[in-house]
Amino acid sequence: MNAFGRLFRVHIFGESHGESVGINIDGIPAGLPLSVDDFLSDIERRKGGVQKGTTPRQETDLPIFKSGLFNGKTTGAPLTIIFENNNTRSGDYEKLRAVPRPGHADFVAHKKYGGQEDYRGGGHFSGRLTVCLVAAGVIAKKLLNEIKVVSTILEIGGEKDLEKGLQKAIDEKDSVGGIVECRVNGLPVGLGEPFFDSVESLISHAAFAIPAVRGIEFGTGFAAAAMFGLQHNDAIVDGEGKTKTNHAGGIVGGITNGNEMVFRIAIKPTSSTPREQETWNWETNEVGPFSVKGRHDLCIALRVPVVLEAITAMVLADLLMLEQRISRIWNP
Amino acid sequence: MNAFGRLFRVHIFGESHGESVGINIDGIPAGLPLSVDDFLSDIERRKGGVQKGTTPRQETDLPIFKSGLFNGKTTGAPLTIIFENNNTRSGDYEKLRAVPRPGHADFVAHKKYGGQEDYRGGGHFSGRLTVCLVAAGVIAKKLLNEIKVVSTILEIGGEKDLEKGLQKAIDEKDSVGGIVECRVNGLPVGLGEPFFDSVESLISHAAFAIPAVRGIEFGTGFAAAAMFGLQHNDAIVDGEGKTKTNHAGGIVGGITNGNEMVFRIAIKPTSSTPREQETWNWETNEVGPFSVKGRHDLCIALRVPVVLEAITAMVLADLLMLEQRISRIWNP
Amino acid sequence: MNAFGRLFRVHIFGESHGESVGINIDGIPAGLPLSVDDFLSDIERRKGGVQKGTTPRQETDLPIFKSGLFNGKTTGAPLTIIFENNNTRSGDYEKLRAVPRPGHADFVAHKKYGGQEDYRGGGHFSGRLTVCLVAAGVIAKKLLNEIKVVSTILEIGGEKDLEKGLQKAIDEKDSVGGIVECRVNGLPVGLGEPFFDSVESLISHAAFAIPAVRGIEFGTGFAAAAMFGLQHNDAIVDGEGKTKTNHAGGIVGGITNGNEMVFRIAIKPTSSTPREQETWNWETNEVGPFSVKGRHDLCIALRVPVVLEAITAMVLADLLMLEQRISRIWNP
Amino acid sequence: MNAFGRLFRVHIFGESHGESVGINIDGIPAGLPLSVDDFLSDIERRKGGVQKGTTPRQETDLPIFKSGLFNGKTTGAPLTIIFENNNTRSGDYEKLRAVPRPGHADFVAHKKYGGQEDYRGGGHFSGRLTVCLVAAGVIAKKLLNEIKVVSTILEIGGEKDLEKGLQKAIDEKDSVGGIVECRVNGLPVGLGEPFFDSVESLISHAAFAIPAVRGIEFGTGFAAAAMFGLQHNDAIVDGEGKTKTNHAGGIVGGITNGNEMVFRIAIKPTSSTPREQETWNWETNEVGPFSVKGRHDLCIALRVPVVLEAITAMVLADLLMLEQRISRIWNP
Repeated sequence: MNAFGRLFRVHIFGESHGESVGINIDGIPAGLPLSVDDFLSDIERRKGGVQKGTTPRQETDLPIFKSGLFNGKTTGAPLTIIFENNNTRSGDYEKLRAVPRPGHADFVAHKKYGGQEDYRGGGHFSGRLTVCLVAAGVIAKKLLNEIKVVSTILEIGGEKDLEKGLQKAIDEKDSVGGIVECRVNGLPVGLGEPFFDSVESLISHAAFAIPAVRGIEFGTGFAAAAMFGLQHNDAIVDGEGKTKTNHAGGIVGGITNGNEMVFRIAIKPTSSTPREQETWNWETNEVGPFSVKGRHDLCIALRVPVVLEAITAMVLADLLMLEQRISRIWNP
Repeated sequence: MNAFGRLFRVHIFGESHGESVGINIDGIPAGLPLSVDDFLSDIERRKGGVQKGTTPRQETDLPIFKSGLFNGKTTGAPLTIIFENNNTRSGDYEKLRAVPRPGHADFVAHKKYGGQEDYRGGGHFSGRLTVCLVAAGVIAKKLLNEIKVVSTILEIGGEKDLEKGLQKAIDEKDSVGGIVECRVNGLPVGLGEPFFDSVESLISHAAFAIPAVRGIEFGTGFAAAAMFGLQHNDAIVDGEGKTKTNHAGGIVGGITNGNEMVFRIAIKPTSSTPREQETWNWETNEVGPFSVKGRHDLCIALRVPVVLEAITAMVLADLLMLEQRISRIWNP
Repeated sequence: MNAFGRLFRVHIFGESHGESVGINIDGIPAGLPLSVDDFLSDIERRKGGVQKGTTPRQETDLPIFKSGLFNGKTTGAPLTIIFENNNTRSGDYEKLRAVPRPGHADFVAHKKYGGQEDYRGGGHFSGRLTVCLVAAGVIAKKLLNEIKVVSTILEIGGEKDLEKGLQKAIDEKDSVGGIVECRVNGLPVGLGEPFFDSVESLISHAAFAIPAVRGIEFGTGFAAAAMFGLQHNDAIVDGEGKTKTNHAGGIVGGITNGNEMVFRIAIKPTSSTPREQETWNWETNEVGPFSVKGRHDLCIALRVPVVLEAITAMVLADLLMLEQRISRIWNP
Repeated sequence: MNAFGRLFRVHIFGESHGESVGINIDGIPAGLPLSVDDFLSDIERRKGGVQKGTTPRQETDLPIFKSGLFNGKTTGAPLTIIFENNNTRSGDYEKLRAVPRPGHADFVAHKKYGGQEDYRGGGHFSGRLTVCLVAAGVIAKKLLNEIKVVSTILEIGGEKDLEKGLQKAIDEKDSVGGIVECRVNGLPVGLGEPFFDSVESLISHAAFAIPAVRGIEFGTGFAAAAMFGLQHNDAIVDGEGKTKTNHAGGIVGGITNGNEMVFRIAIKPTSSTPREQETWNWETNEVGPFSVKGRHDLCIALRVPVVLEAITAMVLADLLMLEQRISRIWNP
């Protein structure tokens, strides 16, 4: 189902080349001030066109509030936000229908929905829908208040020097991937549940909803597998739970321990590479060459930090509500 | 909440040093044959005592059916299985109450539950509850039928030669971590949903319910972040969706593509290391040294493969039911 | 939460005097043909203005598809429908803010949402949102195919002669209630689950989402309480489960038994009566007289049958999907 | 699914003639004192043998705690309670397998589960499982604290004089039904949600999980359908929401209004009547006469009040948690 969260619950909808994409959020406390301005900065961060390596498509992404807002504040009823799709050129895609693009959902969607899917530009599978997640994130971050969620890019194309990584893609006329980190400060001890609703379970569940994510690790992550126990364990040094080191990334037993939360995700290279590829062709029933037309991101990872912040804030807002640390009537 | 799954839904309960641990499963089709024998092999794989590096605690883990079974077959009503806790020595743990063990949930549980938690041996946070997951896995694997889920250890203590990795731990009188892989063959195209219920979202959600997991990656995973697009994309070579390479690990756009599903998890070193550590002491209100008494696993990763298979089978059984590929009355 | 259903899942949103109301539906099979024309007849049935006793407000209620539809068919992605609010006169309501109307949600909403609710015309509590339920019902009925859901009015103002009942209201310059029945034919044996997801549990859950419903009864209902067992029991007369009588209303043990499903709901008289009433006044902090301005339904029950059909069809579509009797790719 | 509730969530399991029935509850705050003694009075109220008209079967129903309790208090982990089945005589039922009893779930269960159901004494459909609901109710009532839930019988066999109603059944050698009322005092304003999670939706959902319930009405209920608006509306007379009358039964717009909550359910006559009946016979493939052996309740309604209190308390505990009026660490 296209929904996530228990008390702060989001439902996303829409297609890349339909009229609009949107999000419906249930559970926002009544009385939270909200305006278009609150969204501009994060939406801008998600947009292409500014940074080298992102697509020059210039969407005018202004949130249109359809419900749940009255006199500039949330009402406690479901909030619905729509983003219109203005800058789409369906012609670019329609002729590609016979050719399921490698790395994209074209083939699986065709099989899953019996050929009834909106195939234009990835349809409902499009990264376009992440603008909805960003909008939910803006609201969730407001609810988090003093808790700060910050995402940054650690690597592009295997390089810590990001310009260098992008240049590799430009030189190769290809796309590259990247690694994005998220850090959260100000968390209380005790968020999350044992086993199935561990913080890692919920964060990873939401993180893999971001297109192109291939891995996630918390704290020392995969490196932990090669460490000794004494080396990895974080000694607790006071009654608030502060630890000497933070290999756990702020989560022990699935529960926040009050230290900085740290995790990283791996983003694959953009599937729509400028290079010629080969793939199956439904019309010829043969494998043949094909090229992606139109402009695409050299490195989709550049757009991901704000989306990762968004899903992280969503999960944390939900957990804070479960722990009754966010009131149902907004009162910061 | 201590529950997971939509149509094949499990709830786990119990504590390490309580009378028993157990699992309740809702949604099993009626008519599935089930006996104690079905469980023995997987429960044995999870047990310590056999392999070098696992704890010599010998639990006699026989599933006791409390409901949902009649004349050797499931009835369609909820199935409840209990495992009694026989081999526990609470005395080992009770004196440690003042000392929250590094790497364990002792501290966070104490804060989250206001000191009311069953602290003996990790209580409800104990790895002991994974025997319940293994039981659910046995049932889920039976439902999967021709679909085969196989987990293996790839690395111990940073070594592909597993004996060598364990020897490092023994030499250092410390514990080590490891990397475990899971491969699934025979999957149809089309399992999973776009965004929040992607296969990766659901698998990772369940995988992080396994204690000590610190990361997960699908297909090429973190390595994908340093690849070029042309290199990473898997060319589709026939109308069934077979791909030339399998960097995607069998999942594209969150949906199975019919190729082998491949993913890996990172396991941290056992937190209960034989080495002396330091941690907070609630009684002295000071940091002090402490040592773990009793026998513990040198490398908890050795017990993980069968648990990883179990949660994978659970997720896949649920998705197959959603796609109506498992009938509500068992009829293989 | 403003959502209902497990596999056929609806979320409603919007306010009476906001820009629009809408519904998002997850789980509709791909390939179901859908056009504006499909909705007109049921939306017309819900409208006032035609029948004596319903309000002359003439909304032009045309469904606007925002997502999930492509080339005239559902795609398998979430379907979103919006109904614009055209015919609202907020001025009628704004001056009433100090006066919580008896029988309406004004007072409880004010308390629940700390005064942040959209109070105009009942806001999110308005019966206006039932147009969204009707839309979901149109889709659900299409999925039900050969199963027919038919709702009729049994009584108005205590009279089986409906004209007479309405005339009582007109004569008294007051409003009246009514009783609405729903019958479903063509159901298979076996829908529903024991205990919490009994058919009665699910139907009643959804039925009480319809504003003004005060009671529900299945089969002989409240009359059963005064019957003898021999009298009430329905003798089974063939191997398909046909019963001689149908006091059970087609549901035994919470499960459909293949006979006609029959149930009734009681609708209270419209709270907005033309008569002068008294209520609390937040400004004067005293009880005072007040009169409802504007035009309102003499008998809201007249609008209910199509809404009752809708929620019944929603529940049944969900249960049929759970029993795998509706395919995920539409193939009637 | 055999589960109910969002934050106070129960799962029931077991069969009438299996080893035991049980309940697993997730979401109980840590620190709630709980002992066997807490349960005795309500379990006694549910038992037969005491009152004229209830079955003399004397079950020794003592709750056995399997998890979630430590040092006499809840731990915050899932609580599991089991009730052993001691006093069963399967022989009474096994020969009846060919004869689906009228009014019971035998026929529908047979069809739904393909003949794999535990058919002894109704199996999982048995009223025996209501002892689990009663146990959940004991805990929920403790959580409700100052809020008092009281259920009473209003009518037996159509008589307000209950002895007279029972005598009718005895005279006729038949069974009779009844009407049970529930009243709740001390509720705050604001519990419940608009539309799908209205208080009536949730209460009725849970109430129809009680076997033999055929109808439910809130406040004036079905009588409201014959009232005028002015007559039915409850005038609000102070700033706390007190109303002059209480026709609404304490719920307006789906939300509690702070007045006494009042509702009633109709219970059908016990299906297992002493009178000879006729029904289908799977062996002869003909309709034939049959008689119920063993001892059964003349009037199952006599056992219902404590069960109705239980499900009401469960729903209210859940809603109070959602409104953050019950703390996650018990602190009354």
